[in-house]
Amino acid sequence: MSETTPTTAEPLRIGVLGYRFMGKAHANALARLPMFFPDAPAVERHTLVGRDEEELAAAADRFGFANTATDWATAIEAVDVFYNLGPNHVHAEPSIAALEAGVPVLCEKPLAPTLEAARQMRDAAADADVPAGCAFNYRFVPAIRHAKGLIDDDALGEIRHVRGRYLQDWLVDPEAPWAWRMDADLAGSGALGDLGAHTIDLAAFLVGDCVGEVDRVAGHTRTFVEERPVLDDDGSVEAYRDVTVDDAYTAQVAYDSGAMGSFEASRVATGHKNDHTVEIHGSAGSLRFSLERLNELEVLRDGDRGYETVLVTDESDPYVDRWWPPGHVLGWEHTFVHENYEFVRAVSTGNVPDTFPTFEDGYEVQKILRSIERSDERGEWVTL
Amino acid sequence: MSETTPTTAEPLRIGVLGYRFMGKAHANALARLPMFFPDAPAVERHTLVGRDEEELAAAADRFGFANTATDWATAIEAVDVFYNLGPNHVHAEPSIAALEAGVPVLCEKPLAPTLEAARQMRDAAADADVPAGCAFNYRFVPAIRHAKGLIDDDALGEIRHVRGRYLQDWLVDPEAPWAWRMDADLAGSGALGDLGAHTIDLAAFLVGDCVGEVDRVAGHTRTFVEERPVLDDDGSVEAYRDVTVDDAYTAQVAYDSGAMGSFEASRVATGHKNDHTVEIHGSAGSLRFSLERLNELEVLRDGDRGYETVLVTDESDPYVDRWWPPGHVLGWEHTFVHENYEFVRAVSTGNVPDTFPTFEDGYEVQKILRSIERSDERGEWVTL
Amino acid sequence: MSETTPTTAEPLRIGVLGYRFMGKAHANALARLPMFFPDAPAVERHTLVGRDEEELAAAADRFGFANTATDWATAIEAVDVFYNLGPNHVHAEPSIAALEAGVPVLCEKPLAPTLEAARQMRDAAADADVPAGCAFNYRFVPAIRHAKGLIDDDALGEIRHVRGRYLQDWLVDPEAPWAWRMDADLAGSGALGDLGAHTIDLAAFLVGDCVGEVDRVAGHTRTFVEERPVLDDDGSVEAYRDVTVDDAYTAQVAYDSGAMGSFEASRVATGHKNDHTVEIHGSAGSLRFSLERLNELEVLRDGDRGYETVLVTDESDPYVDRWWPPGHVLGWEHTFVHENYEFVRAVSTGNVPDTFPTFEDGYEVQKILRSIERSDERGEWVTL
Amino acid sequence: MSETTPTTAEPLRIGVLGYRFMGKAHANALARLPMFFPDAPAVERHTLVGRDEEELAAAADRFGFANTATDWATAIEAVDVFYNLGPNHVHAEPSIAALEAGVPVLCEKPLAPTLEAARQMRDAAADADVPAGCAFNYRFVPAIRHAKGLIDDDALGEIRHVRGRYLQDWLVDPEAPWAWRMDADLAGSGALGDLGAHTIDLAAFLVGDCVGEVDRVAGHTRTFVEERPVLDDDGSVEAYRDVTVDDAYTAQVAYDSGAMGSFEASRVATGHKNDHTVEIHGSAGSLRFSLERLNELEVLRDGDRGYETVLVTDESDPYVDRWWPPGHVLGWEHTFVHENYEFVRAVSTGNVPDTFPTFEDGYEVQKILRSIERSDERGEWVTL
Repeated sequence: MSETTPTTAEPLRIGVLGYRFMGKAHANALARLPMFFPDAPAVERHTLVGRDEEELAAAADRFGFANTATDWATAIEAVDVFYNLGPNHVHAEPSIAALEAGVPVLCEKPLAPTLEAARQMRDAAADADVPAGCAFNYRFVPAIRHAKGLIDDDALGEIRHVRGRYLQDWLVDPEAPWAWRMDADLAGSGALGDLGAHTIDLAAFLVGDCVGEVDRVAGHTRTFVEERPVLDDDGSVEAYRDVTVDDAYTAQVAYDSGAMGSFEASRVATGHKNDHTVEIHGSAGSLRFSLERLNELEVLRDGDRGYETVLVTDESDPYVDRWWPPGHVLGWEHTFVHENYEFVRAVSTGNVPDTFPTFEDGYEVQKILRSIERSDERGEWVTL
Repeated sequence: MSETTPTTAEPLRIGVLGYRFMGKAHANALARLPMFFPDAPAVERHTLVGRDEEELAAAADRFGFANTATDWATAIEAVDVFYNLGPNHVHAEPSIAALEAGVPVLCEKPLAPTLEAARQMRDAAADADVPAGCAFNYRFVPAIRHAKGLIDDDALGEIRHVRGRYLQDWLVDPEAPWAWRMDADLAGSGALGDLGAHTIDLAAFLVGDCVGEVDRVAGHTRTFVEERPVLDDDGSVEAYRDVTVDDAYTAQVAYDSGAMGSFEASRVATGHKNDHTVEIHGSAGSLRFSLERLNELEVLRDGDRGYETVLVTDESDPYVDRWWPPGHVLGWEHTFVHENYEFVRAVSTGNVPDTFPTFEDGYEVQKILRSIERSDERGEWVTL
Repeated sequence: MSETTPTTAEPLRIGVLGYRFMGKAHANALARLPMFFPDAPAVERHTLVGRDEEELAAAADRFGFANTATDWATAIEAVDVFYNLGPNHVHAEPSIAALEAGVPVLCEKPLAPTLEAARQMRDAAADADVPAGCAFNYRFVPAIRHAKGLIDDDALGEIRHVRGRYLQDWLVDPEAPWAWRMDADLAGSGALGDLGAHTIDLAAFLVGDCVGEVDRVAGHTRTFVEERPVLDDDGSVEAYRDVTVDDAYTAQVAYDSGAMGSFEASRVATGHKNDHTVEIHGSAGSLRFSLERLNELEVLRDGDRGYETVLVTDESDPYVDRWWPPGHVLGWEHTFVHENYEFVRAVSTGNVPDTFPTFEDGYEVQKILRSIERSDERGEWVTL
Repeated sequence: MSETTPTTAEPLRIGVLGYRFMGKAHANALARLPMFFPDAPAVERHTLVGRDEEELAAAADRFGFANTATDWATAIEAVDVFYNLGPNHVHAEPSIAALEAGVPVLCEKPLAPTLEAARQMRDAAADADVPAGCAFNYRFVPAIRHAKGLIDDDALGEIRHVRGRYLQDWLVDPEAPWAWRMDADLAGSGALGDLGAHTIDLAAFLVGDCVGEVDRVAGHTRTFVEERPVLDDDGSVEAYRDVTVDDAYTAQVAYDSGAMGSFEASRVATGHKNDHTVEIHGSAGSLRFSLERLNELEVLRDGDRGYETVLVTDESDPYVDRWWPPGHVLGWEHTFVHENYEFVRAVSTGNVPDTFPTFEDGYEVQKILRSIERSDERGEWVTL
């Protein structure tokens, strides 16, 4: 019986702000790199940042962080890379500080609650010499990468229709409790920023090279439940607090090329849990994708009579060779592993792939989100 | 061996203008009433109206009409009921003349190429004492009737989202020949009027009682192929003629109740033949329907975790007891049989069911179509 | 206004035994030929045969028959073609009599309740100079024809797996009333003959040329509800009567070529109304078909990564040009129209297409049904 | 910034034989326990066992094992738990040795290449005081657990039909290289043992309590490609070697209760990658599951008209609360995490849950596999 040799490279120390949903998703992603992406640089889950010391310690223990900090500024000094996974209103300041300190940043989406904050973040990223990523993880679904490959290879011809929607139903119940995601100051917007940001980035990622920029937008937002209960520690209703963001939005888009876009998201789409779909029609073919069946891509190519349901789990498919044999499906969390792999490699090599979402991309999304709101407020199509 | 007794009731003499696609669909529907809807009044396919005498005679022979006429005015005098199945620009004058003569009219959709013509038709119908129907046949799909029953029974709660789209691809090929459906004067509009009219009526039919009227609209239309070949009798290209209607539209709708609508149609949606889908989300349930699987309705009720795929072919389902046992699916044409059944009964009894689409309904649709175009032209949301 | 000229050809006089489900399906089919298949010979729904004079007269009136008869022998003398649509135990004698009289016969499936009766019918057909068809209507689904075309063109390569199942649920309820279809003497068998006959014929039709004959069979049948109520005219339970046929069967098949078959049917498959599916895997491609979505065929060809969902409603698809434009779906009943078209043409021309199911085909199916039962009885694989 | 406290419990030392597909799947599962199943006992990936020292060292490094061993006997002495993930012919001896040494064993399926070897393993497990698990991982799919809950709650009534099939296509290409899985001595059987074992266990797991034991079986196996190339290190064909196992099997099953089973697997089902489906019909409801969409369960309950597509990703669903919010789908590998969680807990507590698959279960599956082969050899139904 012999002992194996440990690897000796100095690992990248990662500092992470936020230890709830996104904190868990990225911590898991980082933990899985060595086994599945051994060519990734070594990483160390170094410091977890949060406000509640007790919860923070428990989370750090569970997520494998050696240290905790309640002050993000301190944490940034101690790490090589900074992940900003906090609520939207905490995105700008720490991210800009990190970039100014030369620390690469991966920030969750939407980039910021306001266009102005997003602009500042974009500018800080432009001034920095280190990668600044905006964590649009759906770019890293193998089926989406496969779709992008088809579009880049011109398999769809001239793109004419882009349709995206993101449906959830966790706010159908009017007694679902108030949370920061329902507050304009903390979140910026509701379904629009939380879900729509994903869709709009995904559309840009997939067809941006073909259809150009968004030229003009008509938008519509709506709040169906105007206030929600704030619960105390026992789960009793303490008070009701106003919902100041949208529950749902719809938008129409005219692209530079003349292509038409149609977008929508809702948190009150009864029966839909995490149903993010994208559909694209070109002069030579069409595509359909649904996040709840994320291993599949429906593809119609020139000469086909109907959509072919492709299980994107072959060895030759993007990222799939790292995992399991054909047909052994991946889950939602794998998108984070791919994203983290690409990001820490970008940090390590200094080379950010074109396909990686940046603060610039996050800002472009934000401009469209803002235009959707403005169209609704002003009752007019808004030119970007 | 004994002879059966013929029925003795005086049949309704039906005059039909138009002998192509819609002429065939309605002729077939009329022919099938006695066997499947014996309680319908007896009808006689009396006179077929058209311009080309040779083609007309052949069509009359095939569709079972005893007489032909090249002049619709003459025909109207000879019949009890007038079906206007001609191109859109021929809808107004003969329909108004018939109504003024006290002859009931069933007119194909969209009601007219212009809002003004539609208004005149609506007014003529209001002044007449006889039924004036606008042939939105998708109201007569059993699954749609079942859906309406669920909505009327409040199974979906407060309606929040209405989504409709109608996708075809017969104009993807830029060399697909020019036809009257591509001309603004003859057709009014393109995908908008031809397909969108169906969707907008269907939405009104299903949820109008819950969400109220359309309050405001943002619209977008687009022509992707600007001119198309005119073919001579040999199929050779004679000339190119401008396409003066849209190939596709999208629209957002705000209803009186605050519900949000999202609509779309295209004739260049590669891979989709006749894909008319409607989706509705309420506070207590959701529905999905697709015309290419018209025997099915996907239903999610309060307490369900996912959509139930209901095959709407049970004996207790609307119209189904007239046809076949459960699971023996119906086709597209059956919607016309149901529509004709209801219409000739309305003529016979003088009692038009609330659910039957009228000229008034056709006019309401036309107002929305016009507002969609206007929104696009003016770059603003348009209030109805 | 001018009158159209009636056609003058002497119509084929059709005599039909049976006026319930199948009587209605074939009467409708005959009625629709002139409008959709004008190249078919003219037919006259001449005589309807049954036992109950009152019901018979009503049915004749509704289905458009000029005459009725309670004695099939008389009817056969009066007609040019005889349709035997009665219960299985009435198939043999009148069909053989008709054939011996030189009257072509179209008989419903299964051919007979016993293999011996089927053999006599097959022999009578062989001795006759007129067409003798066994009404396996699913051969006439456009999607099935399209499938056969692909297989004949070798698009699937060497066939290895054939899977067929036919699921219904109308006997799940133990109080569903007794009927002749549950009696061994009247029906021969249950799900096996009623549903399995379709599946086994369809498999033979599709891949028979590739895989050869069935070499051996293992079978299993089962009756889950042993007796059922006999209802009186008021719907009250009069008595309970034994169910003497199977509610369900399964079978495995080894074909001459080495291909493997797997078959199944049930009348107690909760939730399935008329779910007849066929799946075929070859060395180069695969196919799937489901009757409840009969306009669709799922096709996987060499080089494809997944199944393509083909809507078999293009003008170039079998029979479809007679009906509606692409995407305007057909229903179950259309299979009968196609079948009747082919049959009356065969009668008229004396030329029965290879693809039309004959008494010989019906007999071959019966041999396999019998072997399935025998395998179950004897506990062994049965060689044919 | 503060340091987190490490946990101090003595971890279970795990020894693993096999470092390919299954080695990776289980190593990953063990690695993920602390973050997602913190209530699991601590585990240490202690020793990896294999023959090729170089490959073994690389695998140990990647999979996080501190030690390697080329001799399983040595490894068993050094660990607390032994995982046997080697080829089937290596299952019996090391597993029995471990059990005799009082070391708990988790062994991959099928339990053994021969029924005799399986019996010895079963007996060794019966004599041991430690858990002996057979790794039927599909028991640990949340949707399968949800299905079992429904069946146990009698939501389906009396079970009548059980249908299972497992389709793959990696051997369609006759030039796909020879491997141990194609050799009777090394693997026991082909699709039957590799895939069929899963299906038969899953059926027993789901409905065994309702339908009782398998009473009799008819089986069919077939090898379509008789020899395959052996490749040298350069990928050139060195020789051709006989395939001595089946490429596919079908089986019919009669259960004690009278329920009927129908099973099938293939490695040449063109277009199917890892398509394991189970369908169950009871007198009151039905279920469908497909591994390629493993987050979904189709459920039809009493009174429903169709299947409800349930996304089994709610917090209340089995194991799901450990992972992500509703709609954030899991993948294939998660089944291994659940399985490992249950197994190491069983080791730690000494309490093996009824639902955990044991050597006894593996042996029962093996009896059925053997009977399927025997039925084919002898041409008769085989009683167990």
